[in-house]
Formats: sequence, C-alpha cells, structure tokens
Amino acid sequence: MSLHSQIVPPITKLLTNVETWIDLAHEHASKKSFDPAVLLAARLAPDQFPLLKQLQATCDHGKFAAARVAGKDPPKHPDTEQTWDEIRARIRVVREYVASFTPADFEGAEQRIVPLSFMPGKALSAPDYLHHSALPNLYFHATTAYAILRHNGVDVGKRHFIGALPLRDL
Amino acid sequence: MSLHSQIVPPITKLLTNVETWIDLAHEHASKKSFDPAVLLAARLAPDQFPLLKQLQATCDHGKFAAARVAGKDPPKHPDTEQTWDEIRARIRVVREYVASFTPADFEGAEQRIVPLSFMPGKALSAPDYLHHSALPNLYFHATTAYAILRHNGVDVGKRHFIGALPLRDL
Repeated sequence: MSLHSQIVPPITKLLTNVETWIDLAHEHASKKSFDPAVLLAARLAPDQFPLLKQLQATCDHGKFAAARVAGKDPPKHPDTEQTWDEIRARIRVVREYVASFTPADFEGAEQRIVPLSFMPGKALSAPDYLHHSALPNLYFHATTAYAILRHNGVDVGKRHFIGALPLRDL
Repeated sequence: MSLHSQIVPPITKLLTNVETWIDLAHEHASKKSFDPAVLLAARLAPDQFPLLKQLQATCDHGKFAAARVAGKDPPKHPDTEQTWDEIRARIRVVREYVASFTPADFEGAEQRIVPLSFMPGKALSAPDYLHHSALPNLYFHATTAYAILRHNGVDVGKRHFIGALPLRDL
C-alpha cells in the first residue's frame, strides 16, 4: 500500500469529519442557548489541553504526517486562533494542504529519515514516523477533541468520527 | 512499508502501553483509597461506553486489524470480563496474538478484500480496512479509555500513550 494511500485519504477525511463535529457543537450551543466559544476552553482534566489546543494539535499532526514523510517543509501555524471561525479556517487550510500531496510526492519516502526536533541526534524512518508518531498523535488529539464535545453533551456519534468508507461491492 | 510493519509493532506497543495505564489507575485508586473497580464503570457521557467496554473494543480492533488484513479468523472474545484481572488477561492474550503474526502472514494482503459484517454485500480492500476502519477505531477506543482515566485523576501522560519510539541515530 502506497504511503499516499496511508496518509492523504484518511487524514483529509478526518479533517472533514472534524468540521462536522464543529457544526454539531454549534447546533448544541444554539439549542441550549450558550455561547459556543465556551466549548473551546473546555477540557477533560485540569492539566490537559482544552478543545482549541486539541484541534490545533490535530491540524499539526495531520500536516506533519504528509510533509515529513514526503520530505517537505510544512506551513507554519503559530496557534494564534481564538475563535471557532479561526480554527475552522485552519482546519480547512491544513486539509487542502494534505489533499494537495500526490503519489509522486512520496516517491522514495520509504528510505527517508525524519529527524526528531525534541530528541537531537535521533530520528525515525519516515514509515515509522507515520505509524509510531504521526498517526497515534493525530488520532489521540482528534479523539480527545471529540471526547470533550461528547462530554459536554454535543450529539456526536461514532459515525461522525469514522466518516465515509471507501466501499467496494462484494 | 510492509503491512506487517504497519500493524504488528504499533499495535503490540499500544496494548503494552494500555497495561501501563492500568498500573497507574491502580496506583491512583490505592493513593485515594477507592476500589479501582469503580473506574471500569466510568464514562465520559451517559450514552457512551464505560472504560471496560472501551478496553474490550481496543482489544477487538487490534486483533481484527491483524487477522482481517491477513485473512485469518480472529479468536473470539465474548466480552464477559468484569474485573481488572480479567480485562488485563484479555489485553495480554490479544497482544500475544497480534505479536504472533509474521511478515509471511501478510503476503498477498494488498489484494485481499475484507467483507463488512455490518454492511452485507460491501467490503473494503485490506489496506483500506486498516487505514479507514481498524486503526481509527483502535485509536478512538484506546484514546477514550485514556481520557476516562485522565478525567478521573489518573496520572497518565502523553508519553504513556505514545510509548517507546523505534529510534535511529542521525
């Protein structure tokens, strides 16, 4: 299976799904007559990141997965978002960035090495980076964002997490 | 990257990490003088599965990932666990099952089709099953289990989720 298939369709879909959760969060806030901005500061534990940061981290690990495996410099996002409109815009930008990668971008990536900025002198192979760091981190932060919403009564369900499947007829 | 590398090392490691969370949950219960069994029934939303079921689902998606991609029948686990010892035993059995797969077990798996029991007549290619269903579900349930523990004050951190990385020197 190509690295493109492992990265581009699943991650662009996940970021599309996240926008659905945002729509449902706004519906819930409207129904319960509270400011949806309240949810951006919600968290599951006092020493864990709030929803806004979980969404920023989801974007980061999505763009890092594509960029680092392909050996490109990802666009910088300095975590300055404060509103739903701003974080939604970032999700869209990152989704379009990930979607822009073609199979040719990943040619030779099996042999690429990804240096780890937080461990000077150490690195992972690009495939190991994808499967031991980028994907676990991506799903960790996306699921935590989903869990914060669900814990706060937003009507998200498993289908909104998994999204559409690339089905075939038997 | 081989399907073996995408499945066996990351999933066996995740199940190893889950046992670390269980140890930390027991430490927390001991320190706060409550019965750790209380945590098995904890949940983040009234209509979401409790911790015990999240751990059972984590085991299931781990064993399904290996078995279905390799075209084997996974062992059955009827969700009868009620205690920490029982769910810990299941995690170990599933980890050993996943660890038992060799690269040869995945030969030809790129062309395998995985029927979907909940969608009669429909299927996914084995690689799509892995990346659009098994891994998102696995990380969803594992992260939700982690989130339930963290929400309840257990001292789990990100390093306990990600675990050891297959590092190389630069």
